[in-house]
Amino acid sequence: MAERFVSEKNLRFMLYHVFDVESLLAYPLYSEHSRETVDMILQTALKIGRDILKPCFEEMDKKPPELADGEVRVHPTVRTLMKACGEGGWIAATAPMEFGGLQLPAILGSMCRFIFAAANYSGSVYIALTFGAAHLIISFGSEELIDTYVPSMFAGRWQGTMALTEPQAGSSLADITTTAEPTDAGHYRIKGQKIFISASDHNAVENVVHLLLAKIKGAPPGVRGISLFVVPKLRPGEEGNLVSNDVTTAAIYHKLGYRGAPILQLGFGENDDCRGYLVGEPHKGLGYMFQMMNEARIDVGIGAAAIASAAYYAALEYSRERPQGRRFTAKDPALPQVPIIQHPDVKRMLLFQRAIVEGSLSLLFQCSKYADLEKVTEGTEKEKYGLLLDLLTPVAKSYPSEMGIHAVSQGLQCLGGYGYCDEFPLEQHYRDARIHPIHEGTTGIHGMTLLGRNIPMKGGKAFQLYLEEVRSVIGKAGEDGELASQARELASALVKLEEVSRHLLGIAGKGETELFLADATLYLELFGIVTMAWQWLLQALAVRRQAKGNPSDADADFYQGKLYAFRYYFGYELPKVEGLCKRLFTSDGLTVSMPENCFND
Amino acid sequence: MAERFVSEKNLRFMLYHVFDVESLLAYPLYSEHSRETVDMILQTALKIGRDILKPCFEEMDKKPPELADGEVRVHPTVRTLMKACGEGGWIAATAPMEFGGLQLPAILGSMCRFIFAAANYSGSVYIALTFGAAHLIISFGSEELIDTYVPSMFAGRWQGTMALTEPQAGSSLADITTTAEPTDAGHYRIKGQKIFISASDHNAVENVVHLLLAKIKGAPPGVRGISLFVVPKLRPGEEGNLVSNDVTTAAIYHKLGYRGAPILQLGFGENDDCRGYLVGEPHKGLGYMFQMMNEARIDVGIGAAAIASAAYYAALEYSRERPQGRRFTAKDPALPQVPIIQHPDVKRMLLFQRAIVEGSLSLLFQCSKYADLEKVTEGTEKEKYGLLLDLLTPVAKSYPSEMGIHAVSQGLQCLGGYGYCDEFPLEQHYRDARIHPIHEGTTGIHGMTLLGRNIPMKGGKAFQLYLEEVRSVIGKAGEDGELASQARELASALVKLEEVSRHLLGIAGKGETELFLADATLYLELFGIVTMAWQWLLQALAVRRQAKGNPSDADADFYQGKLYAFRYYFGYELPKVEGLCKRLFTSDGLTVSMPENCFND
Repeated sequence: MAERFVSEKNLRFMLYHVFDVESLLAYPLYSEHSRETVDMILQTALKIGRDILKPCFEEMDKKPPELADGEVRVHPTVRTLMKACGEGGWIAATAPMEFGGLQLPAILGSMCRFIFAAANYSGSVYIALTFGAAHLIISFGSEELIDTYVPSMFAGRWQGTMALTEPQAGSSLADITTTAEPTDAGHYRIKGQKIFISASDHNAVENVVHLLLAKIKGAPPGVRGISLFVVPKLRPGEEGNLVSNDVTTAAIYHKLGYRGAPILQLGFGENDDCRGYLVGEPHKGLGYMFQMMNEARIDVGIGAAAIASAAYYAALEYSRERPQGRRFTAKDPALPQVPIIQHPDVKRMLLFQRAIVEGSLSLLFQCSKYADLEKVTEGTEKEKYGLLLDLLTPVAKSYPSEMGIHAVSQGLQCLGGYGYCDEFPLEQHYRDARIHPIHEGTTGIHGMTLLGRNIPMKGGKAFQLYLEEVRSVIGKAGEDGELASQARELASALVKLEEVSRHLLGIAGKGETELFLADATLYLELFGIVTMAWQWLLQALAVRRQAKGNPSDADADFYQGKLYAFRYYFGYELPKVEGLCKRLFTSDGLTVSMPENCFND
Repeated sequence: MAERFVSEKNLRFMLYHVFDVESLLAYPLYSEHSRETVDMILQTALKIGRDILKPCFEEMDKKPPELADGEVRVHPTVRTLMKACGEGGWIAATAPMEFGGLQLPAILGSMCRFIFAAANYSGSVYIALTFGAAHLIISFGSEELIDTYVPSMFAGRWQGTMALTEPQAGSSLADITTTAEPTDAGHYRIKGQKIFISASDHNAVENVVHLLLAKIKGAPPGVRGISLFVVPKLRPGEEGNLVSNDVTTAAIYHKLGYRGAPILQLGFGENDDCRGYLVGEPHKGLGYMFQMMNEARIDVGIGAAAIASAAYYAALEYSRERPQGRRFTAKDPALPQVPIIQHPDVKRMLLFQRAIVEGSLSLLFQCSKYADLEKVTEGTEKEKYGLLLDLLTPVAKSYPSEMGIHAVSQGLQCLGGYGYCDEFPLEQHYRDARIHPIHEGTTGIHGMTLLGRNIPMKGGKAFQLYLEEVRSVIGKAGEDGELASQARELASALVKLEEVSRHLLGIAGKGETELFLADATLYLELFGIVTMAWQWLLQALAVRRQAKGNPSDADADFYQGKLYAFRYYFGYELPKVEGLCKRLFTSDGLTVSMPENCFND
């Protein structure tokens, strides 16, 4: 079984040389930290990944959670993990110090989640969800809610969840029917059902805290009538003890992958005794929830890139060790077979994986840095980073999710028949990875968010800011003879993206919304490819800076490999914009006009 | 659970209107059959699919074969199936009547395999392998071998297998080490190990007959020293009884999918008592085996298209029944939700699946028809069809395998979270489908076969014949105003394919073999896309002919749907040639030049 799941060298390169994490530490918000903190955080996260998460990667899959006698039993490591991450401050890593957090920059939080998820994706989810839920309470909840729930969550004793989806309203939140009835005591009486709720009940914690969307009776219809509640599994009783809050686990889903985490169907208020505590103001719940959802979307991108990372290292290890066939330049069967990594087609598959893994990680770190900069700056700068983060969130969620599957699949392919068998981890990664285009909004929904909401928002301001960011990198790379040709290619792709966007916004301007959004998924793909090329050019610039400083042999190999992956991306992936643009300019409304009965046969 | 797995209407359309199966029945070889036979075969195959194979689709996955006490226990349905298919003549369907076959055209054999595989891929493999092995004995074996083995195989009492792969020589057959030592008694003594052998031992049959590759001691090195043997699990003893032939089952693989069929590791001759019977002449085994391998490759394409078909109908059914959200033209949350099939993005995903399923099936039927025409014609015509079949086999294997996975994945995506759970069949189809780019030669190997062997063979004659076939369809479609624009697009793509091919052959001409083949996988993809466009244009021509004949309302819906899928293919898939050609013209040798140490980090 492959041992490696991430590249420490690459993480350090990204943090220090591409995204200059030290520049963030210069801001007062992060001034408690230094390069030493960063190194320590990195080492400790790697240790947790290696020592706690990775060893049970397979077993958590083979022995998935079970629902028996109303209790959900998870792998015993989950308890160890929650405890270790609670005590070590990992759940609260990026939370403000006043709430018990370490107040680390978001980019370091992302790094930790990447390491944990690469070691064991299912295991990492318990932590990320608990942070997200606690962060939501901190951001919008009353002091009482914060005091009651956050410390136990950050300590890893209570699990946090996000409870949105309902049976009749998967992606259509306008149609949720869970109700909240006000009571004289101040709390609300909750009644309804939620489905597909991750880690929403299990025996590794003492309590579970649901951040739940519901409608207060008499609320406006649709999404404008949604409120946010804290609904614990066990609520604080009058004597400080915990009492049942009438939340029941109705069913557990049996899934393709991601099996180490229980995904459950929950009932609230079957005995009319489920109390919910309003977060913020009534009817503003969806807006609040978007904070957690957007964080969770970045987390999904991180999880997708992380699984692809683990798959890549497993495929790399196999490709180095497995002798098979000979090079075309030495076909004599009397010669020994060569390791398959020497075959150009295998190198192509490995470079593809590396290009996806490291390009995705770069984009995710870029988003995290925008989140940090939004926090530490003011005025138009703050607005700029906020808009960039908002614009890129659907891309950072979807590109790694979609392409991560292809990367894992190519990793599996490197192993041939062995990749299809459970002696090697690839088949599990392949199953685990398939969740990402689905959860936290399907790829189709993110396409519509990007094109229908984010591109036009504020008169196209976010998109203009994005173009400036990309152009600035193109400008710098254009001055370097080694990168100038790729800089020109990206410039040309960026022009095409602008033209396609203008074309589509023209359709929107005529009020033809269905036609405008019909190929939004393809637009998202196009946007993702251009964005990844930008990130690869950014990395190549950093390599060129570093390569000037007399690197060690090991570093020189790494930098040279980076440049190969960079050239791979521009040579093999960027050309896909040609076909996508051709399609996106067509706008023939094929899928809009097709009547349903044409699917009859 | 979805019930439908194929479209009978589409099968009839393909057989009668696209490939004119009746024209085949006019040849003496098939003159025993009529349109009535074809209809009867279709109905009975559908019945076997519905009544025997489909009902155990899930259960064969959930209770995979087990190896216990040296015996491999499979699902009891396998026995029922082998018996039914033996007695009904299904195993021998396309075999000559003199050997007990029905002497059906290959295109009808392909139709049956498509139906069986769509109902239950794992189940269908037992049948297909047994036919392939028996056909190999008929083609190249002695009369004694035929008499001894073929009747029991065609009767479904003995299983057939192909035993090629060895631990140290996965795809590299030059490196097999299984030995065959001649004896005075006429048979050979076999010694060696084989891995990843499908259906190579199980308790649903009385015996297993391996078609095994081995090297006779003193044979030339590499593939020129490989011979083919019949090696039964139990051999006929002196008293007509069956006695052990020293073949042992060493291990069973635990697989991602395709779990209903046991894939085994076998030992031959551990006690020096394994007898093999030479097929044909010594050292010519690989040539013989290519008959079975090429048939098996078409079967893999069929299996891939079939799984995608079953997934498509499951996704279609769900999309029609699941209400979710509203159209952009009627967003009022007070309105009822609409079935998701009304959303353009869902129609896009369904059209993609249909385009892949029906396009792939068309290509596979095209190949089968070439096989039939090769059989019934003489001279240059015979040569032409043989060359076309040879040229297209890697495409017919690989395009459905690779794109079938994407089709199934889009089907899963239509179901959102439910697609990820085992309440619906999509997650199993997703696992099952992943085997196809691996078995019977990986996609990478087929790329090299197409570009490195088939395109240059006989001075490029096969490729020229292919270009003529495609141009002939373009010519006819160009005369129809409704199809003329797509005809022009295909003509332009075909020119690009020719140019790319010329460019690459130019590199080969300079002796730079590694560079020539470095992107052979992408060339295969390009070739596949152009080939599918040809098949879709061919189908569209048939639709246009049929639509003139006053079709019923149901047929009119079907024809209109076909044209939507056709336009989908040209609008969304064909543009991908742009990016592929751009890459293939580059030939920068990125993957050839990259040193292995650049993967260090």
